[in-house]
Amino acid sequence: MNLIVTGTIGIDTVETPGAGRREDLLGGSAVYFCAASSFYAKPRLVAAVGDDFPDSFMDTLSSFKGIDLEGLEKRAGSKTFRWGGKYMDNMDDRETLFTELGILEEAPPPVPESYKDSEFVFLANSHPMVQIGMLDQLDNVKLSVADTMNLWIDIAKPELTQLLGKIDGLVLNFDEAEQFTGHRNPVTAGKHLLELGPRFVVIKKGEHGSILVHKDGLAALPAYPTEQVVDPTGAGDTFAGGLMGRLAVAGGNDPGSYSAVRDAMAHGTILASFNVESFSLERLQGLTIDDVHARFNDYAKMMHLAT
Amino acid sequence: MNLIVTGTIGIDTVETPGAGRREDLLGGSAVYFCAASSFYAKPRLVAAVGDDFPDSFMDTLSSFKGIDLEGLEKRAGSKTFRWGGKYMDNMDDRETLFTELGILEEAPPPVPESYKDSEFVFLANSHPMVQIGMLDQLDNVKLSVADTMNLWIDIAKPELTQLLGKIDGLVLNFDEAEQFTGHRNPVTAGKHLLELGPRFVVIKKGEHGSILVHKDGLAALPAYPTEQVVDPTGAGDTFAGGLMGRLAVAGGNDPGSYSAVRDAMAHGTILASFNVESFSLERLQGLTIDDVHARFNDYAKMMHLAT
Repeated sequence: MNLIVTGTIGIDTVETPGAGRREDLLGGSAVYFCAASSFYAKPRLVAAVGDDFPDSFMDTLSSFKGIDLEGLEKRAGSKTFRWGGKYMDNMDDRETLFTELGILEEAPPPVPESYKDSEFVFLANSHPMVQIGMLDQLDNVKLSVADTMNLWIDIAKPELTQLLGKIDGLVLNFDEAEQFTGHRNPVTAGKHLLELGPRFVVIKKGEHGSILVHKDGLAALPAYPTEQVVDPTGAGDTFAGGLMGRLAVAGGNDPGSYSAVRDAMAHGTILASFNVESFSLERLQGLTIDDVHARFNDYAKMMHLAT
Repeated sequence: MNLIVTGTIGIDTVETPGAGRREDLLGGSAVYFCAASSFYAKPRLVAAVGDDFPDSFMDTLSSFKGIDLEGLEKRAGSKTFRWGGKYMDNMDDRETLFTELGILEEAPPPVPESYKDSEFVFLANSHPMVQIGMLDQLDNVKLSVADTMNLWIDIAKPELTQLLGKIDGLVLNFDEAEQFTGHRNPVTAGKHLLELGPRFVVIKKGEHGSILVHKDGLAALPAYPTEQVVDPTGAGDTFAGGLMGRLAVAGGNDPGSYSAVRDAMAHGTILASFNVESFSLERLQGLTIDDVHARFNDYAKMMHLAT
């Protein structure tokens, strides 16, 4: 099944307590999403960069065989989005050092004609009206899922609420779920969000795993336990990439069902656990599908309970 | 297999953001532990109360058919331990309102002769020298597990280190593991603690579940997702009670093995998920083993992944 994603491509600077500072890293929500989902599907990327975007980053993206780059626009005279962040000692909290929006302040990239039949849609974090605009250009949608962030809950809650009426699933962080709904309990927050339209809500808790609040049931999944946490940047987008990639190939007749989404969340969990082991896409680049399967099987075994 | 526990019996006052304030509740680590473990085994209770301990609390303890109360000493002229706590809005953080140690400042209760053959031992939180003293009175120990708290890490770390050299397993909170080891990552902290002697460490994360760091492997288990969180008091002791009760009846030839402990942690998780639904033992009192099995099966199904 065809999978399309729209989101950011960025040039990141990351400071970590354990592994130091790295500048000029390939990053952005759509980048992590595509890299992760390419282990399952062939994601179609819709995103824009400026003419400062290094050729080496194009090579990195091309090294993931499954990613369709037709919708990646390199816009002359524009600047690629840049972001800098610094992680605190707990590796969960981070502080934004700088944000240079660049091309994100301009018109969004067009959706290529050849992408308009996409059935699986992931709207990575951006202004909800941009997300709605993207969704409205597609005419064969089978499953649409969006991410969001605290900024839009602050300044564009009515638009975000409008988006929720149009999508099948929402993926967001634990604290964003509380910010949106006023409910600190993730199950209560998730149920509140379901009332606004989606069939399921996935609440991401970083190192503490994720929670599924679906119209047909609840689930909680732990993160894969690991000591190797070098850089959590992009973990949420990698999780979403694994989730959507898996749904696109294994979601069956009803890819938004409780059981399909729960299974796919476990795949997202595994992809994210690899991603945090290095900066940027460095860990995912060296990864094989056999590595993914081996860790997935280990994870499944770890959670298997005899009844 | 015989299971013995030593710990506190208290009269608690609890303030919650959602369900208000309740005074004079039956509480204490050994009480929650016994109630939970009695769903599996027949725990032998070693603890002391003063002559202010209400008869109605004795009736509550007796209502759990499996609890052996021979080792419960009612000491004339002494005062029962009292504790008051207030939960913050997140229901995970709490503030101690008052502590009246009472009988906890006196000599610990003796271990009845008839208990000295106990094979499974749980040393609920108390001074590590009291825990060691208890353990030294038993001559047929097959599996010993201890809990601890921040206070002992602060003021009795050498004694706690000595205890770690004598026990098979340690159960402690996420922040206590960091406090003891200086490592914030729970896997790293757990491995550090393993070097001091125990075969396994269980790190409790409250609503975020628990992590097993065992000489033979790692596991992470989520908490059972629920909206009904009325009072988290005793959740950790209830978890430990389910864990040890299950090990005592189903741990097999090697109850400290990775697979036995992981399975038993899941049982502890389920018991704890019931306990938080009411104050004191109110939820556990109405509970049947069928209720426990039904939720356990639901939990196992929620985490089952096809490989």
